Amino acid sequence: MKQSVGAKTMAMPTPVWLVGTYDANNKPNIMTIAWGGICCSTPPCVTVSLRRATFSYAAIEARKAFTVSIPSRQQVVEADYVGTVSGRDIDKFAACNWTPVKSDLVDAPYVGEAPLVIECRLLHTLEIGLHTQFVGEIVDIKADEAVISAKGYPDITKVQPFVCDSAHRRYFGLGDELGIAWEIGKTIRPKEL
Amino acid sequence: MKQSVGAKTMAMPTPVWLVGTYDANNKPNIMTIAWGGICCSTPPCVTVSLRRATFSYAAIEARKAFTVSIPSRQQVVEADYVGTVSGRDIDKFAACNWTPVKSDLVDAPYVGEAPLVIECRLLHTLEIGLHTQFVGEIVDIKADEAVISAKGYPDITKVQPFVCDSAHRRYFGLGDELGIAWEIGKTIRPKEL
Repeated sequence: MKQSVGAKTMAMPTPVWLVGTYDANNKPNIMTIAWGGICCSTPPCVTVSLRRATFSYAAIEARKAFTVSIPSRQQVVEADYVGTVSGRDIDKFAACNWTPVKSDLVDAPYVGEAPLVIECRLLHTLEIGLHTQFVGEIVDIKADEAVISAKGYPDITKVQPFVCDSAHRRYFGLGDELGIAWEIGKTIRPKEL
Repeated sequence: MKQSVGAKTMAMPTPVWLVGTYDANNKPNIMTIAWGGICCSTPPCVTVSLRRATFSYAAIEARKAFTVSIPSRQQVVEADYVGTVSGRDIDKFAACNWTPVKSDLVDAPYVGEAPLVIECRLLHTLEIGLHTQFVGEIVDIKADEAVISAKGYPDITKVQPFVCDSAHRRYFGLGDELGIAWEIGKTIRPKEL
């Protein structure tokens, strides 16, 4: 039996991503978000949602660019911190001992210590309500050599991203492999055949 | 040292969600997506991206509504299958032995057997490229009693959602708890203070 829990943002799982921007003084800033995801394959795009009140909001609007640094589970303390203070008041890169690396492709910095980074140029801005959704076209993805698989792609088991459980204020790592995508479903046969 | 891996949709982690719709003949359909996420807190909204060629695309456009059923790891085989065939050809609910439940709030069905479901009315449609992004306002969330915590919210450790690693075609469950959100970062002190 299902119970109503109300109109709440309790979809799951949600990623923990770090959005990188330059402010008006070219100071690099970084901000944690959990409201985001991939939103198009061609062109490859990600979406990140920010409140207009954030320092990063104006930076994305001004530079028409942002990065997404995907932290590993070893960086959960820093990622949590970066989501709780504003770049107006704090140099978050310095506080985390992180290196701001200037993207060679878009006008935004990323976290040098993050295993996987996505460089985006702003493609769409959609005002929804408390949050504004920025759609960024992925111009390039850069990964630490150590997390790249033999196939040449970032290996999720080496990147070790984690998720945010906002309902109960917890972070969780990823666990065991459950099966091969676009393969394990083949055991199901439609009844009408 | 970071290497370029190209402009690819390799952000991570991405959820595995089942989008529920009615077609023109009122037949319930369900489709697996990994391109989606929460995109606004107030009003609470989720976004799901679908290719225009999918059967579900026209259904969302016509009914201005969809649901998101969040499968548990025990349903990974069915969730995989549902992403590999079209509702034009197959009754996917029947093939999975799943029950289509008519939402009492929006014009769309959800998976009765999914532990957590989100009922959405279509708020925005954003054409991006190969994929179109549908933003749905969350009208209600319904959860199986067994997955609701003492706090009254869905407990991610009981829902047991999973993620899709599209780069290497694998599904992964969630793992261990890494810490308390908006709390563990407090150990970091900015250098300038």
